[in-house]
Amino acid sequence: MVLVGEPTKSRESAAFTFLLPGGCAYDPAGRFGLASLTCEMMLRGAGERDSRAWISALENLGVERGESVGATQASFGGATLRDNLPAALELFADLLRRPLLPKDQLDQGRSVCVQELRSVEDDPSHKLMIELRRRRYPEPWGRSSHGDEPGLRAVKLGDVRTFHAQHYRPNGSILAVAGNFDWQRLCDHVERLFGDWATADDSAPVASNGEQLKNYISFESTQSHVGIAYPTIPYKHPDYFQAWAAVGVLSSGSSSRLFTEVRERRGLCYTVNATLHAQRDRAAVFCYAGTTAERAQETLDVTIGELNRLGEGIEASELDRLKARIKSSLIMQQESSSSRSGALAREWYHLGRARTLDEIGGLIDALTRESINGFLRANPPRDLLVVTLGPEPLEVPVGVS
Amino acid sequence: MVLVGEPTKSRESAAFTFLLPGGCAYDPAGRFGLASLTCEMMLRGAGERDSRAWISALENLGVERGESVGATQASFGGATLRDNLPAALELFADLLRRPLLPKDQLDQGRSVCVQELRSVEDDPSHKLMIELRRRRYPEPWGRSSHGDEPGLRAVKLGDVRTFHAQHYRPNGSILAVAGNFDWQRLCDHVERLFGDWATADDSAPVASNGEQLKNYISFESTQSHVGIAYPTIPYKHPDYFQAWAAVGVLSSGSSSRLFTEVRERRGLCYTVNATLHAQRDRAAVFCYAGTTAERAQETLDVTIGELNRLGEGIEASELDRLKARIKSSLIMQQESSSSRSGALAREWYHLGRARTLDEIGGLIDALTRESINGFLRANPPRDLLVVTLGPEPLEVPVGVS
Repeated sequence: MVLVGEPTKSRESAAFTFLLPGGCAYDPAGRFGLASLTCEMMLRGAGERDSRAWISALENLGVERGESVGATQASFGGATLRDNLPAALELFADLLRRPLLPKDQLDQGRSVCVQELRSVEDDPSHKLMIELRRRRYPEPWGRSSHGDEPGLRAVKLGDVRTFHAQHYRPNGSILAVAGNFDWQRLCDHVERLFGDWATADDSAPVASNGEQLKNYISFESTQSHVGIAYPTIPYKHPDYFQAWAAVGVLSSGSSSRLFTEVRERRGLCYTVNATLHAQRDRAAVFCYAGTTAERAQETLDVTIGELNRLGEGIEASELDRLKARIKSSLIMQQESSSSRSGALAREWYHLGRARTLDEIGGLIDALTRESINGFLRANPPRDLLVVTLGPEPLEVPVGVS
Repeated sequence: MVLVGEPTKSRESAAFTFLLPGGCAYDPAGRFGLASLTCEMMLRGAGERDSRAWISALENLGVERGESVGATQASFGGATLRDNLPAALELFADLLRRPLLPKDQLDQGRSVCVQELRSVEDDPSHKLMIELRRRRYPEPWGRSSHGDEPGLRAVKLGDVRTFHAQHYRPNGSILAVAGNFDWQRLCDHVERLFGDWATADDSAPVASNGEQLKNYISFESTQSHVGIAYPTIPYKHPDYFQAWAAVGVLSSGSSSRLFTEVRERRGLCYTVNATLHAQRDRAAVFCYAGTTAERAQETLDVTIGELNRLGEGIEASELDRLKARIKSSLIMQQESSSSRSGALAREWYHLGRARTLDEIGGLIDALTRESINGFLRANPPRDLLVVTLGPEPLEVPVGVS
């Protein structure tokens, strides 16, 4: 396990993020949802403490906790007062290494996961973006961690135990800590808690046979939801910040092109955005717009128009605004222990090292209109994938899938 | 206008929150949605700058901006680097005092508001909570700021101008600033920007004739959404923290009663929560649970059971955990300029003064099991109002509306 830390003496708080190779890409065939159910079960008692006792101990330390399961990683994090950091990490060592995974709570845990899966059916924008990602990335990298109902129903306690044993292990795992702590004492403490954690073999994710998926999803509503995705370069690529800045001009802030053209000038929708989503070895830009059914076609057409126009390059003034916003947000991120611990963990995951905010600020400073436009000439938005969800299918331009 | 500030030298950032008496309770009959449309129009240029120029100037300062319209207040806020605070406030002085409200953008602004209103139709949990609040508070205090479509369609530019002139005014307005700034220089600057702002008469909100509303909303889905509300005491009441702590035992954190009983022990739903919502002169607790249709009745019954049980009092260990979590979160809040500026503005709005986090910490420390149980004996959850949204109505126990 890698430990990465950024001590900041002026803080009262400390925050930590664990990343572990327990994402849903490792769900075996017929058990889709296993990674999420394993995460849910791990929270039901660990070490010497049952479910109630573990949660109570954590809350007595004032820890704000959060966990999530992505395609490749499971993430567990917490933030608390600096003095409570060592005790909080001790509880998480139990959680990660010695969860009880109690048999008598499997049905309740499963039920929670089924409820979460079904709640997506009532959340069409969320559902669309899940379906868009599923179609954009090759199996198993585009999976939703919610899994499917037959898979969740089929999970036995043995599956949870096996998944935990294979995917919660020090090799491939990262612990990042930010805030007020002493680096040497943290190292000693983490060594004590995790030093004798036995490694486990890497397991490769198994792709399932992809079913043929349609790009229009029928949904009874007065609203339509439009999703567009196109491939881009991952975080570790040397040109990453060029790609990222181009998406920023498209969608970051109220002066961004999508906001201006789709929302402000035409009033087509309340929400429109594009985000660059990066896995270690692949990345894509995902755009979303939600609108009324009668204005959905225009919204799709205008958004595709903006993606094509982006390929023609950006203006210097657009970059200036973006830089000002990013510099400000980097400095504000520096003031949050939680943001920093999450960012440090992700940096290490993608790059095998973690940069300071100063280093990242330097990379932002070095961006020029010319460098970004050079990138866009070589890599204009293309291979657009359009997925829509609503009462009627939309017309997708020739050359767009 | 009241200016309230909390300078903290160790920060790089500064944040500000304006609260103005421009909530949707002041929407005139036949123009529901006017407060929101006015807010949308104010963002379309101010002072010497048209829409693009104003937004660009703000983004060149690296300001992260946010605005919202509630029942009583409109809120405008921003966070930026400390050096950019004066220039950012100057832009907001234009926005609040000298918005262009351009006629040629009214239709687009209206369209954005209509899109937002309609998007609620695709968001059943949001829709339910809007309907619950509408039924819990007397007109006009329970209104949704989204308004209605006939109202938005009827708005003319003159309505927007009149609404702005009446409700964006110094009397009844608050500006709160937190982060790194010099208090005396801030006072001088704000005096220069707002000192000659002319007052306007207070206008009383006009209640519309309440239509008779049903407490079951039919919605085609496999999911059901359950909402329960009951009255409590507002923020300014001396017992407020007693009421607030009781709701904390019910719903704050993973060891809370609702989380334990509804989610963990029974696996009834993925999300369940209760929040204390306080207006200046009225307050209520709003509970929400989303679940599959077949488990909705059980979810409602268990949640009502927990509300009744809360009236019987809390355990000392529950209060200990809550205190630990709150102390930690107060200290983390102290590290965020944005959180602090918002909290300071709300404190002043409710109390006519703003307490430090130390003072609030002292009030939390003073809570005892006995004080909370005394409050709960005198004020058990009662007059429960149940509103549900889903494919079938649920059975509501006798004595509950």
